[in-house]
Amino acid sequence: MFQINDNFGKIAGNYLFAEVARRVTSFQDKNPGRRVIKMGIGDVTEPLPAACIKAFHDGVTDMAARETFMGYGPYEGYAFLREAIARNDFQDRGADVSPDEIFVSDGAKCDTGSIQELFSHNLKIAIPDPVYPVYVDSNVMAGRTGAFRDGRYEGLTYLDCTPENGYVPAPPKEAVDAVYLCFPNNPTGATATRAQLEAWVKYALANKALILFDAAYEAFVRDPALPRSIYEIPGARECAIEFRSFSKTAGFTGVRCGFAVIPKCLKAADSSGKVTALHGLWMRRQATRFNGVSYPVQRAAAAVYSKDGKAQVKNLIDFYLENARLFREAILAAGIPCVGGDNSPYLWAHVGGDSWAFFDRLLSEAGIVCTPGSGFGRCGEGHVRFSAFNSRQNVLDAIALLKGVLKKG
Amino acid sequence: MFQINDNFGKIAGNYLFAEVARRVTSFQDKNPGRRVIKMGIGDVTEPLPAACIKAFHDGVTDMAARETFMGYGPYEGYAFLREAIARNDFQDRGADVSPDEIFVSDGAKCDTGSIQELFSHNLKIAIPDPVYPVYVDSNVMAGRTGAFRDGRYEGLTYLDCTPENGYVPAPPKEAVDAVYLCFPNNPTGATATRAQLEAWVKYALANKALILFDAAYEAFVRDPALPRSIYEIPGARECAIEFRSFSKTAGFTGVRCGFAVIPKCLKAADSSGKVTALHGLWMRRQATRFNGVSYPVQRAAAAVYSKDGKAQVKNLIDFYLENARLFREAILAAGIPCVGGDNSPYLWAHVGGDSWAFFDRLLSEAGIVCTPGSGFGRCGEGHVRFSAFNSRQNVLDAIALLKGVLKKG
Repeated sequence: MFQINDNFGKIAGNYLFAEVARRVTSFQDKNPGRRVIKMGIGDVTEPLPAACIKAFHDGVTDMAARETFMGYGPYEGYAFLREAIARNDFQDRGADVSPDEIFVSDGAKCDTGSIQELFSHNLKIAIPDPVYPVYVDSNVMAGRTGAFRDGRYEGLTYLDCTPENGYVPAPPKEAVDAVYLCFPNNPTGATATRAQLEAWVKYALANKALILFDAAYEAFVRDPALPRSIYEIPGARECAIEFRSFSKTAGFTGVRCGFAVIPKCLKAADSSGKVTALHGLWMRRQATRFNGVSYPVQRAAAAVYSKDGKAQVKNLIDFYLENARLFREAILAAGIPCVGGDNSPYLWAHVGGDSWAFFDRLLSEAGIVCTPGSGFGRCGEGHVRFSAFNSRQNVLDAIALLKGVLKKG
Repeated sequence: MFQINDNFGKIAGNYLFAEVARRVTSFQDKNPGRRVIKMGIGDVTEPLPAACIKAFHDGVTDMAARETFMGYGPYEGYAFLREAIARNDFQDRGADVSPDEIFVSDGAKCDTGSIQELFSHNLKIAIPDPVYPVYVDSNVMAGRTGAFRDGRYEGLTYLDCTPENGYVPAPPKEAVDAVYLCFPNNPTGATATRAQLEAWVKYALANKALILFDAAYEAFVRDPALPRSIYEIPGARECAIEFRSFSKTAGFTGVRCGFAVIPKCLKAADSSGKVTALHGLWMRRQATRFNGVSYPVQRAAAAVYSKDGKAQVKNLIDFYLENARLFREAILAAGIPCVGGDNSPYLWAHVGGDSWAFFDRLLSEAGIVCTPGSGFGRCGEGHVRFSAFNSRQNVLDAIALLKGVLKKG
């Protein structure tokens, strides 16, 4: 008799954004015609950079003629894209990453969810709280946790991100085998200093632990003192995998392209002690479970690194960062502490109290949608996340509406 | 200490097509200037249908303006594509499948590899021999098999596909919990009759087993008596998931789009006996591990179902089927038994002896690349696969070259 994977039964509740959407729909049904400004989900709103559009069209045109048609591509992505990534995102910034250490994918979500397939079953895993739910849920589904109790899964090590530590957790006292880190952070918008990342690399090397570093928002870092890649930290090539995405950099949320970096010198043992390079394991995983990224999409992604593309991407990020700056000022002016929004598209506002109650109040009184912090983890309680991915007018209107509500509060 | 997944160590040898590519490169290095005709890998050669190219461009153009820009899409795919699929591929052919039972993906390879994530750990799985390697390797990596010995994994039930059963296995005597079936078959090109599929559905219902039905090549079926979907068989909605692809239908190998069908009435229990719909489980899996398919790609795929698209796709399939017919005649005329090539793009030639030896001989004497049958499983020994995905001139030249070799043999 066919039996399902029991671990799916452990997954707690609905996917966060599904619940947000349900409450928004319910509000709109009860208040027809009422304007709603969505600052909850982190989805881009501005069109693709012109250079990407041109390259995307060129890629499609290639598929229209036998001579230029492209069938199955390399599992790891086309060399033209991997070479542009290695040079521009890493080598030009002093990080030692070669093109054959890059695996192009259909997004960082897919990669951060799939990477656990390389893990042994009984790994001790640390995750920040609050956290991007994919890191947790992918391990729950694979059976690496116990039951969900009091808002946490048994068997995971949670790293509290609190106002006290500026939402950047230090390495734990005990040894873990793998840790997920994300900077600039989703959901908090917090960034890690060089010294903070150095402490993590030192911890990983000392404990032979693996760092899963999600750098999907690195393009928003404007402070030159802040590292944008884990590979800017000496020793990281021996203990870290990095994930990147074109989603928030170049507006690719609906286009789907990202990549993972697995240095060739990154090695680990199986239960018998046999040492293997993770690079070869991931290549075998990708060859078996994946068939590469759409050729025209890879052409569009490569255009991000052209001269025009770079300038257009910078303008795009500038635009969202200015949204974030305006919103951040309004929140701070209202006396609400918050982090993020300077080197990040997200703001993490410490509103206090029940975060779903604040969500409901902000929606009913101002028509503004945020994301309740408790949906990202127990330490998210008392916080809400605002996303700067929006039109300027929506942001300005939201600021005006917000002022009215917070004054009353 | 970080430990890798031991199961990767069980995987036997190189990926088949990597070994084929290695031998071809070695031959070309030793014989510079010698022409090589590749009839090994099943990759399309003809451009995308014009209707798909137009829709693909239109989709890219939508991404260039704020008003028409598309961000994150639905995890299960856009309704415009799912509705076109349900109507044209199923309802118009008398199969009861609704749009909300369809999950658009980046390919049938990804779906057939990921579906085992819904399976319990100790499932008894049957697979045909020879077989598309993804079904096996994805379960090996997930730890559902023992070691690889004498060309087979311990713990799997193998269904022999032989000249005696026309390469279509009957259900086994013993009960299994899940079975992978693929018709028209890759690699053999064999098709299953209605009676044969009825026997499988009857077996699955009697044993509460799940059928994983890979119909990636259904567009090549021209015999109206042959079923193209498992859902043409009564009872299949209660026991089968079907996988489809635009790769071979419309030349999307490098574009990446396919879909899975999970009927809402398809249910199974966990170890405690709690019954769950697989549809909801897969939705949860996709929401957690996947972020949908590129919007312009979904636009291109939907154009397959337009009036022009249908006519162009039919011409494309006709073209490859004529390649297959010509090659099949040449092989049969040489006195070599073969199946496939009539309602399938693949030919499975029973050449006898060692299939890698035949591969090497055909390459060195005729410059033709085939795929050795033993690479698909123990029962593939003595056979080679030819693919009809090629230009007409290459096929005609290969036929002429083949005659010289087979005469000598």
